[in-house]
Amino acid sequence: MVEIVVAEHAGFCFGVKRAINLAEEAARERKQKTIYSLGPLIHNPQEVNRLRQKGVNPVESEDGLESGGVVIIRSHGISPKRERELLSKGVSIVDATCPFVKAVHEAVIKLSQEGYFIVLVGEKNHPEVIGTLGYLEEAGGKGVVVENRDDLKAVLHRDRVGIVAQTTQNEQFFKEVVGEVALWAREVKIINTICNATSERQEDVYKIAPEVDLMVVIGGRNSGNTKRLYEIAKSLNPRSYHVETAEELKAEWFEGVKRVGLTAGASTPNWIIEQVIGRIRELTKL
Amino acid sequence: MVEIVVAEHAGFCFGVKRAINLAEEAARERKQKTIYSLGPLIHNPQEVNRLRQKGVNPVESEDGLESGGVVIIRSHGISPKRERELLSKGVSIVDATCPFVKAVHEAVIKLSQEGYFIVLVGEKNHPEVIGTLGYLEEAGGKGVVVENRDDLKAVLHRDRVGIVAQTTQNEQFFKEVVGEVALWAREVKIINTICNATSERQEDVYKIAPEVDLMVVIGGRNSGNTKRLYEIAKSLNPRSYHVETAEELKAEWFEGVKRVGLTAGASTPNWIIEQVIGRIRELTKL
Repeated sequence: MVEIVVAEHAGFCFGVKRAINLAEEAARERKQKTIYSLGPLIHNPQEVNRLRQKGVNPVESEDGLESGGVVIIRSHGISPKRERELLSKGVSIVDATCPFVKAVHEAVIKLSQEGYFIVLVGEKNHPEVIGTLGYLEEAGGKGVVVENRDDLKAVLHRDRVGIVAQTTQNEQFFKEVVGEVALWAREVKIINTICNATSERQEDVYKIAPEVDLMVVIGGRNSGNTKRLYEIAKSLNPRSYHVETAEELKAEWFEGVKRVGLTAGASTPNWIIEQVIGRIRELTKL
Repeated sequence: MVEIVVAEHAGFCFGVKRAINLAEEAARERKQKTIYSLGPLIHNPQEVNRLRQKGVNPVESEDGLESGGVVIIRSHGISPKRERELLSKGVSIVDATCPFVKAVHEAVIKLSQEGYFIVLVGEKNHPEVIGTLGYLEEAGGKGVVVENRDDLKAVLHRDRVGIVAQTTQNEQFFKEVVGEVALWAREVKIINTICNATSERQEDVYKIAPEVDLMVVIGGRNSGNTKRLYEIAKSLNPRSYHVETAEELKAEWFEGVKRVGLTAGASTPNWIIEQVIGRIRELTKL
């Protein structure tokens, strides 16, 4: 029988659990009101479907909202401008923005007020980053999103630089950016906004991936933090796979495998993790 | 004939030139007074000898000072406490502390006042570092000197960390320290106090050392910045040599060599660089 090593920290983080609880609560008490989430509540299509059945309807833009409805702001947060636009539609808001994301907003405002040019280490198209840029704009600050080393060109010759990160950033890349900027700039102030859940999940992969025959990372294909867990796993163990669901597992992956490592992104529900474990047991039993 | 590639930035830096000018000026105008330097004026025994002949007498401690004499504070600087002790001996002071070293003192005071725990990336026993620690103490601040990765243990669990560097630090090590601390601490403020002369000399070595058959680094064996230039050269080109004077060059080093790279620490006088070039020409002519 194969041994399955499940990462100590895997699956839902604090902010995601909180957002789902708030959404379920809103759905339970909705009376006649329509409950919306602005964008899928989390980056996991299966869990979004489960919530839809309970009455949480994802909409892509404000246009589809009925006045009098309730809009859940998901854990990624939104810009203050967008929040005002929502309210102008006559809906009420349940703010499920992750408190750690709120801390990024606050850090960006603080560093802007202190006159720093902001480096936000993150993915340009990620909703969390777009929301944070909205707070930067609102504070009258200047800055840039750094997704890869090329983006650092925009920071050259900046004298005073403030650095923050998307909560789910890769720690190694953050470290590289910080080191580079510190060599150019005269003064750098860093508020490390990578959340504990992110560091813990990444550290678990650094520990487990080299010690197993095969590594499985579970999570939405649209989930940035899951993708980064997978990239780290792949760099340490070429037999690493990223799956969204148990159905994607293939029997041939497990040939000759004695130890399987398992982790899941912060937006992956427990029920999917359990299905994956069950399916691995099936595929590997003699 | 061998080609000699001399680094664009080699030898005396601004601060060293300034200190030597101030010392020579004091010696010229000394009248009956005795001129002292507290410690050797620069980390180069040959140049210190040259200055001694002009009337600049290095003393190791305050004890040997005659009242009424003139003490030159060398480019490395001293602590404010030691400066008061000097004045209490009845001597007058010529302050040749490098302005870039003064900037380190100011950075440490500023960061302490802002409540940061100070990380001073530098050599524990270097006079510049000892002087800077005196300013830290005077400001009522707390901190630690980080010379290697082990020293970082003292920084773990520090919440707010301010980082500065000895002016002649290795940029790569500074970058590593900054990156590590940024992952642990909640807030990090960095004032990059590595001076331009240091970065320029190090960058030249990164450029030249891999492109030559042999690399010669000239400078005092007690010169930290020279040692670091040599370490960088050695890591890039195993045929790297550190010499203090032209006499140390050996003919056998140059067997089969077509291109020689040459650089010198910030405390190496031009006349030594010229002697080394002359000696290389002699040793390699057919």
